[in-house]
Amino acid sequence: MAAADSNQRLALIKENLAEVLNEEIIQKILDEGKHPKIYWGTATTGRPHCGYFVPAIKIAQFLAAGCDVTILLADIHGFLDNLKAPLELVMHRAEFYRHIITAMLQAVGVSTEKLRVVLGSSYQKSPEYVMDVYKMASLISEHDAKKAGAEVVKQTDNAPLSGLLYPILQVLDEQYLDCDAQFGGMDQRKLFTAAKEWLPKLGYRERAHLLNPMVPGLHGGKMSSSDPDSKIDLLDPPETVAKKIKKAVAAPQVVEENGLLAFIEFVLLPAARLRGSGEFRVDRERDGLEPLVYTDIEKIREDYKSDVLTPQLLKPAVARDLNALLAPIQEAFQANKEWQEIAEKAYPPPPKKEKKVKNKGTRYPGASKEQADGADKELPIRPNGETPN
Amino acid sequence: MAAADSNQRLALIKENLAEVLNEEIIQKILDEGKHPKIYWGTATTGRPHCGYFVPAIKIAQFLAAGCDVTILLADIHGFLDNLKAPLELVMHRAEFYRHIITAMLQAVGVSTEKLRVVLGSSYQKSPEYVMDVYKMASLISEHDAKKAGAEVVKQTDNAPLSGLLYPILQVLDEQYLDCDAQFGGMDQRKLFTAAKEWLPKLGYRERAHLLNPMVPGLHGGKMSSSDPDSKIDLLDPPETVAKKIKKAVAAPQVVEENGLLAFIEFVLLPAARLRGSGEFRVDRERDGLEPLVYTDIEKIREDYKSDVLTPQLLKPAVARDLNALLAPIQEAFQANKEWQEIAEKAYPPPPKKEKKVKNKGTRYPGASKEQADGADKELPIRPNGETPN
Repeated sequence: MAAADSNQRLALIKENLAEVLNEEIIQKILDEGKHPKIYWGTATTGRPHCGYFVPAIKIAQFLAAGCDVTILLADIHGFLDNLKAPLELVMHRAEFYRHIITAMLQAVGVSTEKLRVVLGSSYQKSPEYVMDVYKMASLISEHDAKKAGAEVVKQTDNAPLSGLLYPILQVLDEQYLDCDAQFGGMDQRKLFTAAKEWLPKLGYRERAHLLNPMVPGLHGGKMSSSDPDSKIDLLDPPETVAKKIKKAVAAPQVVEENGLLAFIEFVLLPAARLRGSGEFRVDRERDGLEPLVYTDIEKIREDYKSDVLTPQLLKPAVARDLNALLAPIQEAFQANKEWQEIAEKAYPPPPKKEKKVKNKGTRYPGASKEQADGADKELPIRPNGETPN
Repeated sequence: MAAADSNQRLALIKENLAEVLNEEIIQKILDEGKHPKIYWGTATTGRPHCGYFVPAIKIAQFLAAGCDVTILLADIHGFLDNLKAPLELVMHRAEFYRHIITAMLQAVGVSTEKLRVVLGSSYQKSPEYVMDVYKMASLISEHDAKKAGAEVVKQTDNAPLSGLLYPILQVLDEQYLDCDAQFGGMDQRKLFTAAKEWLPKLGYRERAHLLNPMVPGLHGGKMSSSDPDSKIDLLDPPETVAKKIKKAVAAPQVVEENGLLAFIEFVLLPAARLRGSGEFRVDRERDGLEPLVYTDIEKIREDYKSDVLTPQLLKPAVARDLNALLAPIQEAFQANKEWQEIAEKAYPPPPKKEKKVKNKGTRYPGASKEQADGADKELPIRPNGETPN
């Protein structure tokens, strides 16, 4: 019975993941009937958008599987990635992240009781942490730091030194956040394998790593960065969402790199399962047909390939379910005066023609190029809400 | 009168230096009749030996010229350069350094009232400092950090990342030690010019830099690292000092790269001037001749070239004056039970065949290869007691 329960929990933790490193670490904790501690980090820069549902759903599943989850709001990274932004702005953004991520998780019906949200600045400036940064820097070669950050850090000679420092911080975060596993996208893989090697050098234990696959964005690849319509904000009203989804690139019968299908697979279906029904329903009333009701992505893919499920049918269904996910978030926002005030301070209306800020290269989704440039760009949806550089 | 005094003070500050960057910063403070604040850093690793007289004499001159001097005992660097050494050992070594450097300065008769000795660990782990390390790392490119450390940091791909971090720390130290100028050897030049550029990036003011020339070691270049006799410890008894000086390589009539002549120029003559006589005296009683009495290095060089001053005549004179410098240090040591106990703890008798520790590459003299390998090697005497890598 306990074993069955343990296996079910593990299955939910692993659902949709591309890879798990050191699964035995998590298995053991589950077998003991305990709560694996999982951490996920995000830099508090650009305004979180619908792409954040991809990691958020995994986090919701971790919580549903009885894990203790820590979300690291990497405010120092956020600050360093745009030194022109005043520190208070970054603090407001961190507060905004805290509100919206919690609301996203509540929107899919999981309890956030076992969720802990930690600010990077609360420990990344402590003497113990800093001493470990110095120590690690004297044990790790430049070459190894570069290799670890290869997928997430800009690799030119002119890249800032911080890009080589961040891998060390991210590895130490596992220890200082006292986690059993770190969660991230496949672009984090080199960093995660580095963590396995590096932590024991300081006498710390090796952690497990949960890797989400890279998922195409809702809009199917490249977006015009000057098109503010391309990004779906978590507070966009239903009609805006519908309009933006309608514009999404989705070639009929092509399932590869299809952002709409990916969104169904990695967000809408898991969210539906978490909330009970487990269904994705496609209305065909206009054609005088019965609705299509799916519970797995394979069948959806099949029907899309054969054009039973056309982009024209799919888009309103995606918009409807996404709006259903957004509704409780927006209700929470409307009911919370404090959050509204923070939103104003965290993301004041952007001035026309903002100067572009270079991507400083961290793994934190908020620090990705699209976001560092302001809040007006679409971030292709990826499991950890991140774009590779 | 004030101008004359200011010029005299500046002359003493600049005596024997190879170069001064932004001299006007110091000039202005002197013109106002104030006290320039000068800092010099040393990592607390190997046991300080006679080579340390070279920077110590300059520091004594700074004090004599009415400067406030800060000596940074870079204990964190010392610790990081040999992570196998327990932290307590490094603390004991820092304490040993504090005692012996103070005694060295007192030995040349200057007041150490305006001398401040600061442990790196007292501020290099503070939140403000650390935030500035992070900030600087995000403003400085890898390339620039590498360039800044080119002469003092190992430049291979496999070198530890700390080598790129240290330049940032050393630059920030200028701000956090609140100095007007940093003192170091010519091997620090690239780092010093980086400091001029980097500090203003964080809104801090540019400092002056005082550069000592690179001076050949007492033993004239390469030493056998396995020969414990080659190093003259500050606590060596007079007969040991005489024996070691006797063994020093000094070709007759060759003044270039002559460690004995360099020691006279950069240590003995300035020390004699600080103590009043200003003389270097060479006894020739054995030959039934009057002693040779010098007050400047040019005449000594001349006589050495013409073989009036032979190595055989020179060596006992150097040994005598060095012993005279060491005597008050050794007296202070004998009179100080606490210091004796610290010496025992800081440098316990080395086990046979110690494993070599790689040079982690900092500019701090104590961190140079010769010293990181243990306390049993000679460090060629250089103005800041340092060897290039």
